[in-house]
Amino acid sequence: MSATEHDDDVEGRARVRDNDELREFYRELGEHGAGALWTVANAIEPWEPVAHSVPYLWSYEKLRPMVVRSTELVRPEDAGRRVVMLLNPRRHDVAASVGWLYSGIQIMLAGERASAHRHGASALRWIIEGEGAYTIVDGEKARLAGNDFVITPHGTWHEHGSEGTSGAVIWQDGLDIPLVNALEANWYQVHPDLHQALAGPIDRSPAEFLSAGVLPVDARTWDRPYSPLLRYPWERSYEALLALARTGPGSEFDGHVLRYCNPVNGADVMATMGAQLQRLDGGQATSAHRHTGNSMVTVAKGRGHSVIAGQRFDWKKDDVFCIPAWAWHEHVNDDADDDAVLFSFDDRPVIQKLALHREQAHPEGTQQA
Amino acid sequence: MSATEHDDDVEGRARVRDNDELREFYRELGEHGAGALWTVANAIEPWEPVAHSVPYLWSYEKLRPMVVRSTELVRPEDAGRRVVMLLNPRRHDVAASVGWLYSGIQIMLAGERASAHRHGASALRWIIEGEGAYTIVDGEKARLAGNDFVITPHGTWHEHGSEGTSGAVIWQDGLDIPLVNALEANWYQVHPDLHQALAGPIDRSPAEFLSAGVLPVDARTWDRPYSPLLRYPWERSYEALLALARTGPGSEFDGHVLRYCNPVNGADVMATMGAQLQRLDGGQATSAHRHTGNSMVTVAKGRGHSVIAGQRFDWKKDDVFCIPAWAWHEHVNDDADDDAVLFSFDDRPVIQKLALHREQAHPEGTQQA
Amino acid sequence: MSATEHDDDVEGRARVRDNDELREFYRELGEHGAGALWTVANAIEPWEPVAHSVPYLWSYEKLRPMVVRSTELVRPEDAGRRVVMLLNPRRHDVAASVGWLYSGIQIMLAGERASAHRHGASALRWIIEGEGAYTIVDGEKARLAGNDFVITPHGTWHEHGSEGTSGAVIWQDGLDIPLVNALEANWYQVHPDLHQALAGPIDRSPAEFLSAGVLPVDARTWDRPYSPLLRYPWERSYEALLALARTGPGSEFDGHVLRYCNPVNGADVMATMGAQLQRLDGGQATSAHRHTGNSMVTVAKGRGHSVIAGQRFDWKKDDVFCIPAWAWHEHVNDDADDDAVLFSFDDRPVIQKLALHREQAHPEGTQQA
Amino acid sequence: MSATEHDDDVEGRARVRDNDELREFYRELGEHGAGALWTVANAIEPWEPVAHSVPYLWSYEKLRPMVVRSTELVRPEDAGRRVVMLLNPRRHDVAASVGWLYSGIQIMLAGERASAHRHGASALRWIIEGEGAYTIVDGEKARLAGNDFVITPHGTWHEHGSEGTSGAVIWQDGLDIPLVNALEANWYQVHPDLHQALAGPIDRSPAEFLSAGVLPVDARTWDRPYSPLLRYPWERSYEALLALARTGPGSEFDGHVLRYCNPVNGADVMATMGAQLQRLDGGQATSAHRHTGNSMVTVAKGRGHSVIAGQRFDWKKDDVFCIPAWAWHEHVNDDADDDAVLFSFDDRPVIQKLALHREQAHPEGTQQA
Repeated sequence: MSATEHDDDVEGRARVRDNDELREFYRELGEHGAGALWTVANAIEPWEPVAHSVPYLWSYEKLRPMVVRSTELVRPEDAGRRVVMLLNPRRHDVAASVGWLYSGIQIMLAGERASAHRHGASALRWIIEGEGAYTIVDGEKARLAGNDFVITPHGTWHEHGSEGTSGAVIWQDGLDIPLVNALEANWYQVHPDLHQALAGPIDRSPAEFLSAGVLPVDARTWDRPYSPLLRYPWERSYEALLALARTGPGSEFDGHVLRYCNPVNGADVMATMGAQLQRLDGGQATSAHRHTGNSMVTVAKGRGHSVIAGQRFDWKKDDVFCIPAWAWHEHVNDDADDDAVLFSFDDRPVIQKLALHREQAHPEGTQQA
Repeated sequence: MSATEHDDDVEGRARVRDNDELREFYRELGEHGAGALWTVANAIEPWEPVAHSVPYLWSYEKLRPMVVRSTELVRPEDAGRRVVMLLNPRRHDVAASVGWLYSGIQIMLAGERASAHRHGASALRWIIEGEGAYTIVDGEKARLAGNDFVITPHGTWHEHGSEGTSGAVIWQDGLDIPLVNALEANWYQVHPDLHQALAGPIDRSPAEFLSAGVLPVDARTWDRPYSPLLRYPWERSYEALLALARTGPGSEFDGHVLRYCNPVNGADVMATMGAQLQRLDGGQATSAHRHTGNSMVTVAKGRGHSVIAGQRFDWKKDDVFCIPAWAWHEHVNDDADDDAVLFSFDDRPVIQKLALHREQAHPEGTQQA
Repeated sequence: MSATEHDDDVEGRARVRDNDELREFYRELGEHGAGALWTVANAIEPWEPVAHSVPYLWSYEKLRPMVVRSTELVRPEDAGRRVVMLLNPRRHDVAASVGWLYSGIQIMLAGERASAHRHGASALRWIIEGEGAYTIVDGEKARLAGNDFVITPHGTWHEHGSEGTSGAVIWQDGLDIPLVNALEANWYQVHPDLHQALAGPIDRSPAEFLSAGVLPVDARTWDRPYSPLLRYPWERSYEALLALARTGPGSEFDGHVLRYCNPVNGADVMATMGAQLQRLDGGQATSAHRHTGNSMVTVAKGRGHSVIAGQRFDWKKDDVFCIPAWAWHEHVNDDADDDAVLFSFDDRPVIQKLALHREQAHPEGTQQA
Repeated sequence: MSATEHDDDVEGRARVRDNDELREFYRELGEHGAGALWTVANAIEPWEPVAHSVPYLWSYEKLRPMVVRSTELVRPEDAGRRVVMLLNPRRHDVAASVGWLYSGIQIMLAGERASAHRHGASALRWIIEGEGAYTIVDGEKARLAGNDFVITPHGTWHEHGSEGTSGAVIWQDGLDIPLVNALEANWYQVHPDLHQALAGPIDRSPAEFLSAGVLPVDARTWDRPYSPLLRYPWERSYEALLALARTGPGSEFDGHVLRYCNPVNGADVMATMGAQLQRLDGGQATSAHRHTGNSMVTVAKGRGHSVIAGQRFDWKKDDVFCIPAWAWHEHVNDDADDDAVLFSFDDRPVIQKLALHREQAHPEGTQQA
């Protein structure tokens, strides 16, 4: 049922009619930093959740040339990083892709490296293409390959570079910058030496955390609000997704879903953002539902389409689209013979910690009827 | 050190100069729902937390006549509730008093009662004056007196009324409406019967939860994200504050502080908002500090002044003022012979759960030097 | 259904008949530190929980003269402490009163004080009579009065004394010594100075933790596995119990029950032992039930009787009795006009943490039919 | 420092000399279910933890023929299960191998299957040899191979069988039966149908939980006090151990250690018992330490020796030995060219939940000097 079907002319809602005396009263209130609640009550207490964003799809085919072109237009030492932001049409003011989540497509040329910094915002990365990319987080260097998922949690020193000999590496960034700015808690520091010294072997954490159900005995003392596992290699995640798919039918709304987690305690990878991999069988069409919280989806494999808030979006590998809060959504794998895999990151940890999760199945099952 | 002292013309920050080619590139990006990060990077990645609100004080003496006047201007059945909102000069757009917190002063005349509703937002109340006020939350009726603290958590049915025979009851509301709207998770329902039936005796939860250190054996199964104790009577809280004050010197920044909590597990009273009572000895002047998170402060007892972001605010009983995130602040009890007590509610549960807490002592100890 | 009604001559149970070849086999196994499971399987895998203890009541009237006499027989500097242990007839070997719980009645004369020590075991105290008793735990001194409940958790320095001018103070000790010895984790240290220096004011923690629902803001960083509140004054606990009794009918098995807890997080007061107060209305007779875990009960107020494992025990103030694990039990307040209050301590924290809790209502409601 | 070096003739310890009057007093106390604490105080409050068990090694070479012979001596339908118990020389009375832990070697012939049951005790299995073994736990069937680790938590229906066509399967059982009996909480039920129906595919949980850092989205609602992952395949665990070994030097006392855990939250696999894999580099000799808690160790790979409480035990693959609480212990891999791997299970979850963990490094580093 849409919000517009609700009637505000009922007891329990505000329905005061304006008049001169009231207008004078409102003016006087305004002079004292005050206002009358009933003038805004219905607007700020909506019947149903109201999203600020609209659904949108960013075609990688169209974005990629512009990303590449940025390497000709700006030097890394001037730009900081060469990133094409994905901006939701309704969230330009806060530089968000959907809700309070930011995303962008970043490129580095062979041999480039960016300086190290840290900040109050948290970041994650999804590797799209190229050879030789690496990230260093608090002294641990991770070598990156396509569809790897990487985190650089708030407060950790981090830097990126490419050790490739030719070509570019391209990845997608996801950050909670809009949220942390909204919560007035962001800050920024440049590393005093511009670059970090390595502390320990390359790819240490993926070696420490390899199989489900076994943990280094010391890992259980880890108490930071983010995962000690920094890189989640694609081959492991996809293998796990395939194994999961063999155990049963999965969710009617989402297919088979693996959530990236902190291996030490099963929590989301970071305090403010989570991420997951979702697999649709060949030809699978899911049922529609909606829930609070926003998602940014990247196509990791396959091709298909999604219907979001009644609008159809066709997608193929490396395309990115967003699902705004409380928007009905459903997915279809348009390849009958191969699976499709969607990577997404979201603000679910925020929604769940603040006890704001809410979910509904579509009464008709689908918006496409 | 203020944010303005930072230099953005360094490696690791964006410092691209505009030119025609870039402007054309930006235009093209805009057509595809995209933008160049370096055009906004420094703004969205500030060196220090940036608050959206300014410090402000609402004088109860000045507000009260306007609150009373609202009873002549609008009928409760039209206004829903007669509330004078406290609006931060920089947060009119989101109807916030500070940060993402809303507050207002509500009035009910003897014999009035409002209908029951519930919503995704959480609310708290601080009773200012009058006899006979009550609140019913999920079937439990609480009788309210001056300086009582009451919660009506998200999702609970709640309604208010006055059983007094003359005069008005006035209280302060605190809600997370701006936050829950920002997070796109608010919703609203009018009670199907307009009023709730009572379930159990009046003031049940303050009887179940009386002394620290003893819990009804069944209470330990409570697992909702808010306190089962709905009313925190002033006499108990103030007595506890006085007892605490006898145990030692308290915090140099805050005096003696009691935090209202869920008695079952010690958590904050609600998932998104916390509250506390703070006592300053006669004549006490605290040291200045700043931290992330916003507070709305109400003077429960005494008179004094606070310096917030370099600006002095004189206060006395029932005045309300706000402390924006990351603003230096310090308090002085201007009565040498009697204590002062400040009630405040805040977004600290949000800040802490999202791991965004940060705090600094003022390098000089005070802004008043 | 009693354990004896089960038939071991069924598939899934051991029913091997002895013969010479087997006896030779068993002898050979014995030589290699081995045995045949089927010779003991039915015994070590019983159909129902089997308690090691029997129900027992220690009459204070009878014990008191012997406790007093100990002051004439041994000097405190020789005895360490003058304590009459309460020994379960079936648990002499482990010095337990019931299960793995130890209890004793301790006496100190006016002006005596014992030296400070600490150990791996945890202790609690229930004050029975006398003026001037005190306990010092990790530098905090607590003044003790009748029916106060006091904890001295494992690893804390503690010492006791009497500052009375005449007469004796008598209290009941409860310790987990048998359990901690069984778990091979006990240890003992005499304080290097024999006595502790005070750190802070007398009765600090009952001042810090007074009312339910308010906590010193710093208390929330407490992370030890026991309560920071050391003394639970009787007047507070009983007042809370009376308040609770006015809210509704209580449990049919236990009446109204308050559980002593860590005020910071609602956990049991110590890692291995919990305690509670239980109130029976005038004339109340509870229904029978049984559960895993052992309790030591002391009559705090009133008179009545309990039926435990089919045996009747009449009790009055200061009597002590035990309820062994899995024994049916029910209580009757024999005073129609006044309430009865039972204090008890138990091993419930152990049972619950190890997921061994199990409970049954008596099929007939009572054993007295 | 050994316990015997402590002097009990000091203030704070009991040192009452016997005499006739006291003996009469003790007799009188005994008649009232009481005793004098000072007669046992020093014994029950030892200076250092006192273990009930002695170190012991069970040679698989010697045990195996007896295990095989049991198949000729008793029929499964009479024995329930054919198991040779490993009995600590000092724990025959409670059928324990060390502390309160039971272990045994179980054998099934090709084609045999045991009936399903469940009980209050928890069990784990370590597969030693043979083809075709399986376990069914609450409807999930697991196929077992050498060095696999399997859990059958308390309260779950479980049954075992062999689908091999020839030969026997042999595994080691580990149970907390002595502990659960000591805590008087054991119980036993035969499955009403003697066998379970399968619910879902074979080896479902190892498919659901494959890689560290990814979890089925629904798994996060799992709230039972044990792992939903039932079988931990050897190849995964050993691969993870090898990967861990490449990240750094490991512990000086234990080498590289992986702890089996509940993948959903990182907790120990069951509420009362944990397990781990420990790897010693070729030729590695660890430093000696001691701690509370008991371990049963099985050699998964390699050969070496351990010194436990001053006594040397030489071991090779499939041997089993125990390390009693508070016993100094150190390990040596006697093969300079290949690693050694020790599997062990222990009561550490009990020790840690009850806050009884304590650990000491040996002052000399080794007992072998």
